[in-house]
Amino acid sequence: MYPPDNSEDLGPYSHTKVKRLSDRAHYDRDSIYQILDEGFVCHLGFIANGTPYVIPTGYGRRGNTLFLHGASANFALAESKRNTMVSVTVTLIDGLVLSKSAFHHSINYRSVVSFGTVAPVEDVEEKKLALETILNHIVPNRSSSTRPPSESELKATRVVRFEIIEASAKIRQGGPKEEPEDIGLDYWSGQIPIEWRYSDPIPSGNSSKELPEKLANLSRPGR
Amino acid sequence: MYPPDNSEDLGPYSHTKVKRLSDRAHYDRDSIYQILDEGFVCHLGFIANGTPYVIPTGYGRRGNTLFLHGASANFALAESKRNTMVSVTVTLIDGLVLSKSAFHHSINYRSVVSFGTVAPVEDVEEKKLALETILNHIVPNRSSSTRPPSESELKATRVVRFEIIEASAKIRQGGPKEEPEDIGLDYWSGQIPIEWRYSDPIPSGNSSKELPEKLANLSRPGR
Repeated sequence: MYPPDNSEDLGPYSHTKVKRLSDRAHYDRDSIYQILDEGFVCHLGFIANGTPYVIPTGYGRRGNTLFLHGASANFALAESKRNTMVSVTVTLIDGLVLSKSAFHHSINYRSVVSFGTVAPVEDVEEKKLALETILNHIVPNRSSSTRPPSESELKATRVVRFEIIEASAKIRQGGPKEEPEDIGLDYWSGQIPIEWRYSDPIPSGNSSKELPEKLANLSRPGR
Repeated sequence: MYPPDNSEDLGPYSHTKVKRLSDRAHYDRDSIYQILDEGFVCHLGFIANGTPYVIPTGYGRRGNTLFLHGASANFALAESKRNTMVSVTVTLIDGLVLSKSAFHHSINYRSVVSFGTVAPVEDVEEKKLALETILNHIVPNRSSSTRPPSESELKATRVVRFEIIEASAKIRQGGPKEEPEDIGLDYWSGQIPIEWRYSDPIPSGNSSKELPEKLANLSRPGR
């Protein structure tokens, strides 16, 4: 039912078969990993006391694993580990799509809905690597320009690994759909792209160093 | 245990008591609604067949209600209605926070985690109003410049109302925290704000009208 570990595709399986607008669905690792690499905040879904929770949190990807972290008392991470399966969703919003009919309005987006298991990362060396992966996923190469975590900081941090078991990407792009009878209607129609970018860095009062070039030119992988 | 309907606060109750970094938590309607009004894509969390799902979807707010819609066969909306309680989370990412220590890196964000019940909107007039609320939430005043939904389009659309029972907002802003012993370290530290804006609208081939001024100057309420 699930793919072998080296399968090119991560779906469709029981949780990820996209039923509606299935031409928007992608199951190959490339499409899925590209979206996961461009995003850096995911929405973690888990069940605690019978209620579904959705908590936003930063992450880093290595291969088919997403690392998540929080304080050692972090509720979401502690509860996630008690779930047989949790979900992690990453959504990038690319624009508004305005049609001549209310019905065909849409949003351009790229999203990954994934399901998998959460396990603790407890070995100190693995924990360091996982935290580096998260930091460098969010700010490329940043780990070489900071003080690494101390022993007590490592102890105060809970790290978990989320192994993707199945996933689907959904991508909507391009202009609006119209009903043939609406084409002549005298309304504006088209797309309004959303631009998402880093603006000028603001140094803290303690910042002793000129802005490193890599931070001045920061951009997400896909942009 | 839950607030009266006119209470100023929507928490903290059993699901929303923010335990960690509770100085970042807000429970008043103003803080919560402001974030809900600036966002327009939420992450809906529900349980289906024992598994937690997180699905991104557009929404519109009226008072303490969020309206969600989808195709009549929409899996997430159908399953959500079977849940006693679902969650809706909205997250706005405002910037990266770079500290001199790996440990104190952070993300500036504003998020709302809310819990409530989902009920179908079936009355045709209510359905029309709910769909208008969603459309105008995403693109202000757009409903007056489109063809309204036909009877068959209304039938093909499932609309649900999510009533917020409890909610918390979490806001992190400002520069990095530093340990006193790190202040002298020779690393760059500060914030890198994320700018999120509409870029130039792209008319479709069928667009017969000049760009309306209100679309040329589109911005989210909070910006």
